[in-house]
Amino acid sequence: MSKTVMMRAIGSADVLQIEDLEIPAPKAREVQISVHAIGLNRAEIMYRTGNYVIEPTFPSVLGYEAAGVVTGIGEGVSEFSIGDAVSVIPSFGFDEYGTYGELINLPVHAIVKHPKNLTFQQAAASWMMFVTAYGALVHFGNLQKDQYVVIGAASSSVGVAAIQIANMIGATPIALTRTSAKKQQLIDLGAKYVIATEEQDLVDELNHITNHQGVNMVFDPVGGPAVGKIMQAMAKQGTFFQYGALDTRDIQMSVMDVLGKHLTLRGYELFEITTDSNALEQAKQFVYRGLESGQLSPLIDQAFNFEDIQKAHKYMETNAQIGKIVVNVK
Amino acid sequence: MSKTVMMRAIGSADVLQIEDLEIPAPKAREVQISVHAIGLNRAEIMYRTGNYVIEPTFPSVLGYEAAGVVTGIGEGVSEFSIGDAVSVIPSFGFDEYGTYGELINLPVHAIVKHPKNLTFQQAAASWMMFVTAYGALVHFGNLQKDQYVVIGAASSSVGVAAIQIANMIGATPIALTRTSAKKQQLIDLGAKYVIATEEQDLVDELNHITNHQGVNMVFDPVGGPAVGKIMQAMAKQGTFFQYGALDTRDIQMSVMDVLGKHLTLRGYELFEITTDSNALEQAKQFVYRGLESGQLSPLIDQAFNFEDIQKAHKYMETNAQIGKIVVNVK
Repeated sequence: MSKTVMMRAIGSADVLQIEDLEIPAPKAREVQISVHAIGLNRAEIMYRTGNYVIEPTFPSVLGYEAAGVVTGIGEGVSEFSIGDAVSVIPSFGFDEYGTYGELINLPVHAIVKHPKNLTFQQAAASWMMFVTAYGALVHFGNLQKDQYVVIGAASSSVGVAAIQIANMIGATPIALTRTSAKKQQLIDLGAKYVIATEEQDLVDELNHITNHQGVNMVFDPVGGPAVGKIMQAMAKQGTFFQYGALDTRDIQMSVMDVLGKHLTLRGYELFEITTDSNALEQAKQFVYRGLESGQLSPLIDQAFNFEDIQKAHKYMETNAQIGKIVVNVK
Repeated sequence: MSKTVMMRAIGSADVLQIEDLEIPAPKAREVQISVHAIGLNRAEIMYRTGNYVIEPTFPSVLGYEAAGVVTGIGEGVSEFSIGDAVSVIPSFGFDEYGTYGELINLPVHAIVKHPKNLTFQQAAASWMMFVTAYGALVHFGNLQKDQYVVIGAASSSVGVAAIQIANMIGATPIALTRTSAKKQQLIDLGAKYVIATEEQDLVDELNHITNHQGVNMVFDPVGGPAVGKIMQAMAKQGTFFQYGALDTRDIQMSVMDVLGKHLTLRGYELFEITTDSNALEQAKQFVYRGLESGQLSPLIDQAFNFEDIQKAHKYMETNAQIGKIVVNVK
């Protein structure tokens, strides 16, 4: 029997219930993992509350991230052996798979070996954040040395990952955060500049920082009318990656900015990388190299126990964290 | 002496005055052309009224399009000889060059020989419209056979060009026009479907036409809140090319459409092609092939005499035309 978090309704964190499940043997091209640590992410809250791009059907498992040890392999799996320390890259739907459990089966393409210098907590925290940021900044955006990249909601785990990837490339990360409370921490985490959007004039600050050259790339999960403000301070041929919808209001922007500067706004999701086997392979290699060298290092905010999964979700909803919330299973 | 249209102030069509100018010999890498026909385009009205991306400095020449015969070549020009029939591709600023004159000097990269089956009127009308549409649909957009492409302001010259290029590729052009007045003409010009945006529900119609598969590409010079409406009926990974600002209100769209369907909105201008020598060369070849085979054929709405340049501009401002307005110089 495996303790597994199940959802039988949409709602608050209280809908997350731990149940004892019989986990079947892994099917063809599946891997079974004894989970040591789970990484949480905002998509799971959106899913739980019915605001995700995919509607739940009940009962539903959930969870995109985890790390653990291989305990079983299905037919046709040659990439992994029992005993391997592995982690999970989100590349499946909760209608089939989830990571919130002691024992989980997952499709082999979602599994990756992590560098030996990582703990299970770190491994569980790494892949979602780094592959998400890599996909926009590197794969689609081709961010270059010395370019300016604005990182919205910078204290989120993906935001911190983007700061590290920008530095790894030699670009200049400009972190956005609502108030100055997290300013020093973001500087310590590698942000070259931090703008507190509720306290400073966003456009003025960006113009000042870039000496009116404009920012070349934006990587933002917020959206709304702020998109148009940031675009005022973008450089010609700049690209704005919208990877979340924290502000559910319409995106709004000046047509003259879009047209005169040939700007691109692009909705981006991690799944564009994880469902493309070539892109996923390149992402795995990039992130592995960065983790091994220490240039990429997941920031863990706090760890909860598995029994406290509801508390962990509630904590994520306070937005107090900087970096990843993890849950210890073993 | 050469009669040349000059602008000494921003304003109505009345600011366009024909003056007698002494035209110097062509400088290095310039070509001198005796103009037979001029093509008009909306950018010139925007420039004249102070609404263009470039502010005029006075006195200013203007004009992006023309066709004629080479009468002189500057140093280092080996591509053309005196007597060649040539036309002009917009790839310069009005601070340096313009085409509204009997005798004009232009940089050699802006000159192209046209197929012999074209009249000077047709040649003057061809390059702006076809290269503009080519740049978005083919160069950046990589439009494929059997994809749906929505063409905004479809009765404009660039709109008609986009219809023809879509058909040349084997894609399905869906033309947008404000009222049903131009519906039959757009069908005759190659549009597979026409939607009268003031009379029909845009989203419903697009969903019906595409059988809810969504449109893959949009090529639109309007903008404003309609962008978000069209996006409701776009397919996953769709691209919206915004190439004009006829509606100067903010562009507005649902973040869930952008994010859930990984949509791209891209500001696009012809100059992105004409200032990139590789892209321009490919564009010239594509358009030349199309013009020579007859798959691309410029639609001319009406021809004015050179002396009536003010009338020609006023007529363009009525939006009554379908296709290109040309001006006969010789």
